[in-house]
Formats: sequence, C-alpha cells, structure tokens
Amino acid sequence: MSNQQIWLEQISNLLKEDDDQQIRKELLAIEPADIEEVISQFSSFEDQLRVFRLTDDTEKRAELLSLLEDDLKLKLTEKADPQEITSLIEEMASDDAADFLADLENDVLVKEILKHTETEFRQDITKLLSFDEESGGGIMTSELCAFPNNLTVKDVLNSLQPETLKDPVMYVYVIDSVSKHFLGAISLIDLIHADSDEKIGEIAEPSSIWASLDEDREKIAAKFRKYNLWVMPVLDHRNQIVGRITVDDILDISIEEADEDIAIMTGTSEAVSHDANLMEAIRLRLPWLVVTLLLALTNAFVIGHFLKSLDKFIVLAAFPTVIAAMGGNTGMQSATVFIRELALEKILPEEFSSLVLRETLSGFLMGIVCGLIAALIAYIGIPILYGETSHLNPFILAKIIFFSVCFGMTSASLIGTLIPISLRKWGLDPAVAAGPFVTTMNDILSSFIYFFIATTLLKVFL
Amino acid sequence: MSNQQIWLEQISNLLKEDDDQQIRKELLAIEPADIEEVISQFSSFEDQLRVFRLTDDTEKRAELLSLLEDDLKLKLTEKADPQEITSLIEEMASDDAADFLADLENDVLVKEILKHTETEFRQDITKLLSFDEESGGGIMTSELCAFPNNLTVKDVLNSLQPETLKDPVMYVYVIDSVSKHFLGAISLIDLIHADSDEKIGEIAEPSSIWASLDEDREKIAAKFRKYNLWVMPVLDHRNQIVGRITVDDILDISIEEADEDIAIMTGTSEAVSHDANLMEAIRLRLPWLVVTLLLALTNAFVIGHFLKSLDKFIVLAAFPTVIAAMGGNTGMQSATVFIRELALEKILPEEFSSLVLRETLSGFLMGIVCGLIAALIAYIGIPILYGETSHLNPFILAKIIFFSVCFGMTSASLIGTLIPISLRKWGLDPAVAAGPFVTTMNDILSSFIYFFIATTLLKVFL
Repeated sequence: MSNQQIWLEQISNLLKEDDDQQIRKELLAIEPADIEEVISQFSSFEDQLRVFRLTDDTEKRAELLSLLEDDLKLKLTEKADPQEITSLIEEMASDDAADFLADLENDVLVKEILKHTETEFRQDITKLLSFDEESGGGIMTSELCAFPNNLTVKDVLNSLQPETLKDPVMYVYVIDSVSKHFLGAISLIDLIHADSDEKIGEIAEPSSIWASLDEDREKIAAKFRKYNLWVMPVLDHRNQIVGRITVDDILDISIEEADEDIAIMTGTSEAVSHDANLMEAIRLRLPWLVVTLLLALTNAFVIGHFLKSLDKFIVLAAFPTVIAAMGGNTGMQSATVFIRELALEKILPEEFSSLVLRETLSGFLMGIVCGLIAALIAYIGIPILYGETSHLNPFILAKIIFFSVCFGMTSASLIGTLIPISLRKWGLDPAVAAGPFVTTMNDILSSFIYFFIATTLLKVFL
Repeated sequence: MSNQQIWLEQISNLLKEDDDQQIRKELLAIEPADIEEVISQFSSFEDQLRVFRLTDDTEKRAELLSLLEDDLKLKLTEKADPQEITSLIEEMASDDAADFLADLENDVLVKEILKHTETEFRQDITKLLSFDEESGGGIMTSELCAFPNNLTVKDVLNSLQPETLKDPVMYVYVIDSVSKHFLGAISLIDLIHADSDEKIGEIAEPSSIWASLDEDREKIAAKFRKYNLWVMPVLDHRNQIVGRITVDDILDISIEEADEDIAIMTGTSEAVSHDANLMEAIRLRLPWLVVTLLLALTNAFVIGHFLKSLDKFIVLAAFPTVIAAMGGNTGMQSATVFIRELALEKILPEEFSSLVLRETLSGFLMGIVCGLIAALIAYIGIPILYGETSHLNPFILAKIIFFSVCFGMTSASLIGTLIPISLRKWGLDPAVAAGPFVTTMNDILSSFIYFFIATTLLKVFL
C-alpha cells in the first residue's frame, strides 16, 4: 500500500471518529503536497474543509491552499473568512500568491481579499497580476535580497532574516547605491567566508545572464537549461532588478510546455488531465475530431472520384491507406525533430535550409526501401488473393505502389519540415504540424499522388 | 544579429589573424555554454582545439569540456595531454566527471585518465560509473556537505570552504555521529543566523524526502516537482547519505523523458536530434517505418479481401480511410492523457477502471456526433458524385458509416486507454501506445469493423 493510501485511510477513519486532535497530529507529519492528494480523494466538501482547517501550521496551510485544484480553491476561499485567506496569501511567495488569485477567476473576491493585505504586498501582487502569464514578469517572484554596493558583508548578513524569506535563497544581488542598476550576485557561501568589513560591491560577481520583464518564458527556460541555473534575476527596462525566477517554476513550465506540444501533436486544444470531467474532455477534443472528420471525408470523396473511373481495377482501392500511413508516419517523424528542438531553442535560423534538404533526402532514401518492400509484397500477394479477377498486371500494380510510396514519403518529409519552420516564422506553435489537421491534409495529398501515378502508369501500359 | 553570431564572427576573424592574446581576452567574457556553441560551428578541428586551449580559467575549461558534443570530447581527449584532462575532470562535480568519462565510450582511455587522479576521487568516480544511469545513484553527485550532529554551528561554518565546493550549496546535511544515519538538513541561511555554539543536531530539520540509490530517475523527478525541491539527498540501504541530486539535472532529465515519450509516440527509437547525421537518423527511423508498412499492407489485404466480394459497391472503397483516421485520432487522444500522466506519476492504480470507463464513454459520445456528421455528408454527397452508378441506397451507406465511425471511435478509446495501462503494468513504456505500431493495428481493426458492419447491413437490406 502506498503512503498516500495509508494516510487516506487513517484520516478517513479519524474523520468518522471525529477525532480532530489526532488528525491535527497526523497532519503535522505530512507534507502539504501529500495532504493535497489526500484531500483530492475526498468526495465530501465538508471533509475537505475540515482537513484544511485542521492543518495547523500557517505556512503549511498556505502552501496547501496554493496546491489545491482550482475549483476547490474557489469553493474554500468563498467559504472561509476573508481575513484568514488574507493571512494565508501573505505567507505565500508573491508569485504563488498572484497565481492563486488569478486561479480564482473571480475579480470581486480577489478585490475583497486584497483589501485586507498590507499596502506593499498589495502593490506587489497587483503589479505581478498585470504581467503576461507567459513572460518573465508573469513567472517571477518579487521577493529578493538585493543590497546597495556600499554596504558591508556584515551589514548584509545581519539584514538577511530567515523568517522574512519565503523561497530558498542562494544568492544576494548587488545594486548600485545611486542608479539602482543591477551589478551582480554573491553566493551565500562566499558571503559567509568574505571579510565582514568588505564592501559587497567589491566581491560581487558580475553576471551577464538575466531575464527581462517581457521575455518569453520558453526563452527563459532555455537559458536556465543552457547555463544550468537555479535562479535568475529579472531586470526592467531601466536595468533595475525587480524580481527573480526560481528553477522549481522553470521545471513546472518545461513540463507544461512539453505537455502542450504533445497535446497539440495528438489533437487536443490543451493538455487534458486524467481528472478533467467527461464534458470538459469532450469540449477540448471534439472540435479537432470534427475538423479531422471533414478532411477525412474530403479524402474519401477524392478516393471515390478516382475509383469511379478506375472501377475495373478495384484492387487499386486497397492501397490508399498504405500510402497515407507511410506518408503520415514519415512526416510525423520529420516534424517531431523540428517541433521539439524549435521549442527548446536549439535550432539556429541559418541551419534551416540544410535541415530541410537533409530531411527530404532521408525521406526519399527511406521511401526507396519501403517502396521496394511494398511493391514486392503486392506483386506476390495480389495474384494469390485475386487470381485473374484483378484485371491488373501485378507488375504494373507493383510499379504504382513503389512510386507512390517513395514520392509520398519524400513529399511528407519535405512538408513535415517546412510546416513547423513556417509556423515558427509566423509566430505560431510548430507543434500544430504534427497534429491531426496537417496529418489529414497529408492523407489527401497522398491520395492524389497515388491516383495520379496510377492513372499515368495505367495510360502508359494499357 | 544574435550574440552567438557576433562571437562566432569575432573569434573566427581573430583565429585568421592569429591573435591568440585577443582571443583569450574575448573568451574570458563568454560563458562556457556559449563558447561550446561557437566551437560547434567551426568546421576545422584545429580551430576547435585552439579555442579550447585558449580558454584560460581551469574551472571554465573543465565546464566547456563537459559541454562538448560526444565525438569532439573524444577527439580532444585523445589529442590532449592525459595530465591536463585529469586536472580538468578533477575540477568537475563528480556526477559531471562520471558522465564525461561514460560519454567517451573508450575504456582504455578512461583507465589512463583515472590512473592520474587522486585515490578518493577515483574511487568516487568508479562507484558512480557502476550505478545504472537511470537510477538515483546514476544521477547523483558525491560531493555534499554532511556533518555529524555533535558539531557546533561555528565548526560547520568554518569548515565550509567555497573553493572545495563544485556545485551551489543551499543546505548542509546532518548525520548521526555514531551510526552515520541521515538525520536532516539545515539551510545555509538558518545556519548563518543560528547561535554559533549550538549543536547542529539541535537545529536540523528532519526530512522525510530523499532518494534511494536504486530509485528510478523518473520517480525522483516526480518528487522534485511534487515537493518543489532544489536538491535531494540520496541514501543507501543502511540509511547513510551517499550523495545529492540537484535540480538542474532533474530539469534536463524531465526534458529528456518528455522528448523520449514524443519520439516513441511518433515512431523513432529515441529522440533524433536535428544535428544527427543522415544515416544515423535513418537507422533510428526506418525500422519503425518498415513495421508500419507491413501492418499497413496487412490492412490493404484486409480491405482488398472484403472489396473482392463487395465489388458491385465500389463506393464502399472510399471510406476505410475515414474510419481509420477517426479511430486513430480518438485513440491517440485517449492514449496521450495516460502516457504523460503515467510518466509524471500522476495517476493512482485505483483510478484505472473508472478512467477506462470514462474514456470509452467519451469516445462513444463523440462517436455519435462524428458518426452523424459523416453519415449526413455521405448521404448527400455520394448521390451527387456517383448518381445511379453507386448501386447502393445512400440511406444504407449512411447507416454503415454512422455505425462504423461510432463503434470505431468507441473501440479506439477503449484500446487507447487499455494499452498504456497494460504496458505500464508489464514494465514497458506506455508511450508505445501512441506510436505507429498500435496506430496501424487500430487501422486494421477499423477496417474489420467497417466491413463487418457493411456486410451485415447489406445482407439485412438487400
């Protein structure tokens, strides 16, 4: 039995026995993220509220509150005393507090909560809420340890008070005492070992890596990975430090971006969570399916149209799915490389043309191999299946299949690289290129290629 | 022009002018990750070696060495003086040093390099190299600050020497002075503010979150995300601390795992990088394409077989692609949810059955909607395209299409959830379920469903 299941059982039993004292004691030993998992398993809101209230430590309760699912956050906040919620969000790091308030999606309630907070905190939060969620400003926290360069090491060590710091601290930042410009950083460990009367301006390491307020969060995440950072200062346009971004948020963002890519590639508007309800999941998926359906029907009519004039050769009707499957998979493979590496900022624009060429060439070479295999199997298999009724020389059929598989795979590779690059240039998400829309468009193209080659070769040979 | 391009141009020019002095100066101001990018653009190995040697600071050169691409690492190490390489890997954190040596894939060379290192370092590295790369032991570093609980705060602060620490330090760990068991952690900031004569055992925060040596790295990454950690201690089976895992490695691992999932979902044995060479890319992709091809050909023979007996109704031949496309996309959507959330450790086993039910139900409901749309369009469109030649009452065709789309989508949803769950239970990667193999299997199933419904309804109505 997992820890989660044990906790769930214990707390459920204690709730039934009304043993609040014991629940408090149990909760003390459980991490907030685990309490959240237990709470999410309860079906009764009363039980959820009770466990929330029995989580004693304010800091822990604040963290629990920020971890709850959105609808429970809202229900609980509406039910609770606004004063209590205010004191809890004041415990949170400012970015978590801003995220919490944004998640409520209820402006009246947010105003009510903010009314009771301290002025400075309220200003911080209001400012954070005004930034684009996908920008440096939207993911930073405003708490930071920044000190003027004319302070001494001793001054700084004395003014670092653990209780006022909400997130882990590894560096203190140094700013110019007059212009307030960002100058650099000192790691805590260097600070401990520095001469206590030295000015911090003397020992700060100048840093060339920072984020700006309006920088895209994917670009910022790419910098964290490239330079192996744990924390990054955020500067405004006047070169003053206004916040810092921490790696735990970058980890969440990286996972989110990957999941978004996967969602788009597999045809969902956004990542559908396994605990989304039925109607929500359908709302996110059905539109893509309907678009796919309309394109697939177009393909059906293309196939139907050609077969009408080729109805003597009904054996031809068996192979459009093969050409489509091969083109689809090859194009998907090509697109995937570009989608992820574009997202991770790994491809330079000057590499585009050589990459398109390489992908197309590899599609062509693999097309020759697959085309030969398919042609051989059709050449042997069709006479066995159809005997004399196929009305089609198996050698011609094999040629048709060879050329369509080969050209289908080549064109799919070309398209699979060109589309993500073009989408990127137009500022759209390249992941769309592996989605059902582009895949089904490719199906239609492959039908045209197949029947074009079939009619051409049949005219030549008959 | 990007910074990278400016550096590349400047350094290329200086190389031509043989101005080593100026190159040294330029390199001082560039981060190792950026120097690596510049080096990777050079076509001449001589230039690469020269820039590497002109990177003055040893720490920086060590970081640069660890960042180089594998083949360049090997070439450079073979060319360089073993003593120099030894001094560089001694600069690296032990996990980076072990990764570097593993990347060389040359046991003779590795032995030669290790021969010159200090005994303790060599033992550390040899031990790290013995762990499974995907386990806690494989991703940890052995440098850590762990102190017996009977030391005082002052003792600890004095023995933390910045120059001996290779990775950022946020916590010191506390162990039992007798049993050496792990007791807990103290953040640096708390240490700074603690009473300097206090025993560290008194102020350590007990911690219930750690990794074990053989724990799977995906499970460890999930804990980092769940508990918002920056660093995690690694304990052996005797409950003694043997290393620590840092969040920058977890960030890389999370991206790698997501990319592996995407690669498998799109039919590549492992993530193909855009700078993989042509033959390497083909080697990774072609096997999947050939398997897909064989399955697609099987499907073609299934379709061919049924059409042989239904050749009066050639119009039926237009729609297998529609049923396959709809089933494929629906199944992919269902599978995706499970694949990623299973990988991120978000789904509990006890939720499986209700989730399978929900997915199947949503497939059925969406199948009704899509089936109705498809039937309506076929009912209107087919008489326009074929007139009297279709030999098939459009109402019967509409019925066939409605039932096959609806049942095709339902069964694809069911399969799309059952397969990832089963793969997981058998210890295989659930991402395979969205890959071309399962997708093409689904195509075959959809052909059977379609023709089964067609023959059944035609028998009833004719």
